[in-house]
Amino acid sequence: MKQIQGGVCAAKGFSANGVHCGIRPTKTKKDLALILSSVPCTAAGVFTTNLVKGAPVVLCQNRLKGGKVRAVICNSGIANTCNADGMEKAEGMAAICAKEAGLLPEEVLVASTGVIGQKLPLEPIADGMAGLYAGLTATPEGSDAAEAAIMTTDTVPKSAAVTFEIQGHTCALGGIAKGSGMIHPNMATMLVFLTTDCAVSSEMLQKALSTDVQNTFNMTSVDGDTSTNDTCVILSSGLAGNPEIVSEDEDFAVFMQALNSVTVALCRQIAGDGEGATKLLECRVKGALEDLAAKKTAKSVICSSLVKAAMFGEDANWGRILCAIGYAGVEVDVSKIDVAFASDRGTVTVCEMGSGVDFSEEKASEVLSAKEIVIDVTLRDGDAEAVAWGCDLTYDYVKINGDYRT
Amino acid sequence: MKQIQGGVCAAKGFSANGVHCGIRPTKTKKDLALILSSVPCTAAGVFTTNLVKGAPVVLCQNRLKGGKVRAVICNSGIANTCNADGMEKAEGMAAICAKEAGLLPEEVLVASTGVIGQKLPLEPIADGMAGLYAGLTATPEGSDAAEAAIMTTDTVPKSAAVTFEIQGHTCALGGIAKGSGMIHPNMATMLVFLTTDCAVSSEMLQKALSTDVQNTFNMTSVDGDTSTNDTCVILSSGLAGNPEIVSEDEDFAVFMQALNSVTVALCRQIAGDGEGATKLLECRVKGALEDLAAKKTAKSVICSSLVKAAMFGEDANWGRILCAIGYAGVEVDVSKIDVAFASDRGTVTVCEMGSGVDFSEEKASEVLSAKEIVIDVTLRDGDAEAVAWGCDLTYDYVKINGDYRT
Repeated sequence: MKQIQGGVCAAKGFSANGVHCGIRPTKTKKDLALILSSVPCTAAGVFTTNLVKGAPVVLCQNRLKGGKVRAVICNSGIANTCNADGMEKAEGMAAICAKEAGLLPEEVLVASTGVIGQKLPLEPIADGMAGLYAGLTATPEGSDAAEAAIMTTDTVPKSAAVTFEIQGHTCALGGIAKGSGMIHPNMATMLVFLTTDCAVSSEMLQKALSTDVQNTFNMTSVDGDTSTNDTCVILSSGLAGNPEIVSEDEDFAVFMQALNSVTVALCRQIAGDGEGATKLLECRVKGALEDLAAKKTAKSVICSSLVKAAMFGEDANWGRILCAIGYAGVEVDVSKIDVAFASDRGTVTVCEMGSGVDFSEEKASEVLSAKEIVIDVTLRDGDAEAVAWGCDLTYDYVKINGDYRT
Repeated sequence: MKQIQGGVCAAKGFSANGVHCGIRPTKTKKDLALILSSVPCTAAGVFTTNLVKGAPVVLCQNRLKGGKVRAVICNSGIANTCNADGMEKAEGMAAICAKEAGLLPEEVLVASTGVIGQKLPLEPIADGMAGLYAGLTATPEGSDAAEAAIMTTDTVPKSAAVTFEIQGHTCALGGIAKGSGMIHPNMATMLVFLTTDCAVSSEMLQKALSTDVQNTFNMTSVDGDTSTNDTCVILSSGLAGNPEIVSEDEDFAVFMQALNSVTVALCRQIAGDGEGATKLLECRVKGALEDLAAKKTAKSVICSSLVKAAMFGEDANWGRILCAIGYAGVEVDVSKIDVAFASDRGTVTVCEMGSGVDFSEEKASEVLSAKEIVIDVTLRDGDAEAVAWGCDLTYDYVKINGDYRT
């Protein structure tokens, strides 16, 4: 497997673009993205479990029930959620896109991200569609333009891609993501668009995606708030030429590995760019009794406001980590827990067998001054492991969210 | 029922005091509190559900299994949690207190609050005990001194008391509380010490307390972190002269009402003094299908970091409230939800039947500029109601918790 550039344009058959159409007031901020496949794609998706769902989420869930997909159209600025006319607007957005690209409306998936409860105007989308379509390109620049258009409070673009071999055919899989606040996915996540040219049946594509998100996006949290518009979709053009993957065979395993390497890269980018974040936190739990226990423990640690604030302050306040493990809702023997902090500046063990150990505060400060902090937790209850990604809690998180709408 | 002064000294038989003994470096900050009853008390308690429990919690749980109680000794500064010698220290603290006051060690309850994982020194406690005991007084000043000694990041003391009548006997019930961060009680809470002279059997006292906390402390959250040392105990001296309450009769109902008025007052004080908080948030949910649904919905709203930050910014970003309702884990019909903000400066409805309504942003800003904000949620699914208390998320929360230990 090889890391490459190109995001959603890395796989054969896909072009993308992003423009400013006028949903957002700032002309320099792109707000409309299009990803188009030259051929009909098998497709799969996972979506928010929030009962309050954006209209685009409902539209995608319906359209993925059968049939193939050609395009994804996405706007930022307004979430098209909690509006009486939301579904009408989402369908209108797909129709405008389909008309310009010569597709059936049913072949177009729709996503929106931004403020909840504001009405989505279709005029800017209609006005911007010709330019958006005309500028489509299958280059990394096309993927970058689409990525720029789906960003909200994101400060950096998020993109990853790999190539891999299936029966002598070189396949590519890549994706782009947005997500900075309201990030605590459950079953799905923020906005993530993945494309591949590896031929995979719809059924196996859904299986791959649903399995993978349990270990990736569902293990990522910025602020504990599960969004109303979480959407993760994957399109497969099948243009790599490999025999279509239709069962859980060796090829499927290779595909899963490629998918995971892209989604983990996106998770790390999303968590590291959490609203106001200065640090990426990674909690690695080892020795849990079972998978779910490992996952709940890791996620409880990276979700704790007190742990997050301590990491911002570069303060080795490990008691807060024990506290978060203790309320994770998992049966653990707290007298067997070890905790260590690690980064590219070293490792410092702060707790052994549930009790504090003497450690150098100077060394701990040095370790915690890095941009990426690993919190290593060993439970000694079994063999299960899990990793979760989060970020620190900072003044800027409060600033960004104290006045987001205005 | 009548609100009075006096906190834990409001009820007959109780005296209290607080001193600086040296667990904390700052000499002006009291760090050791004592509440003493002149007679053996029936007692009840509820405690943290965190698996990581402070040694004092385990000690109290054991001592409340049988027998009567005479005193509560409490230090601040160090939580005596996650230390190999924690139980030895907790028992030592009780023994020092018992010796000075001429009690059996088994008659003394112990509580600690502060940094997790630091070793608790017994020398300052032994040195300070004579002065602490000598200064005991049954006046409001005694309660205030004890309250001052249990405070950590609290900025204001928390106290409440009422008088009520049981069969012609005037009874009093009062309490003190500390709690500012790591506040998300589950079954119990922070540190709350309640005293009453109303005669109540141990069994009925436990029933009253366990029932009440479900609607009070368990509906309060500052930061979503369930503490390792949550402790809420109530002592009854029985000196009011009423026939002992031994069943769920009318007297019990009056007692429950008195208890609730004190605990609600303490909850509001705790939430309003949440770490860094500038506003008290109260979410009132009406029209839920059942009690649990109402509670989960109310608590989800006041726990949302995004809602809390918006309230700090005085921004009527109601979409975040719908979002928090949607992920509360409760079946609600989101198309029937109304949301309004209310304060002493007016009321503004922002959402009806799940969709936004036009409202004056100016009016909304005015309403949200108050110190106490009510978030009114109407679900139209049934008749159940609940109230939850929280606070806004501010720069100062991050500041306080970015560097708590040093």
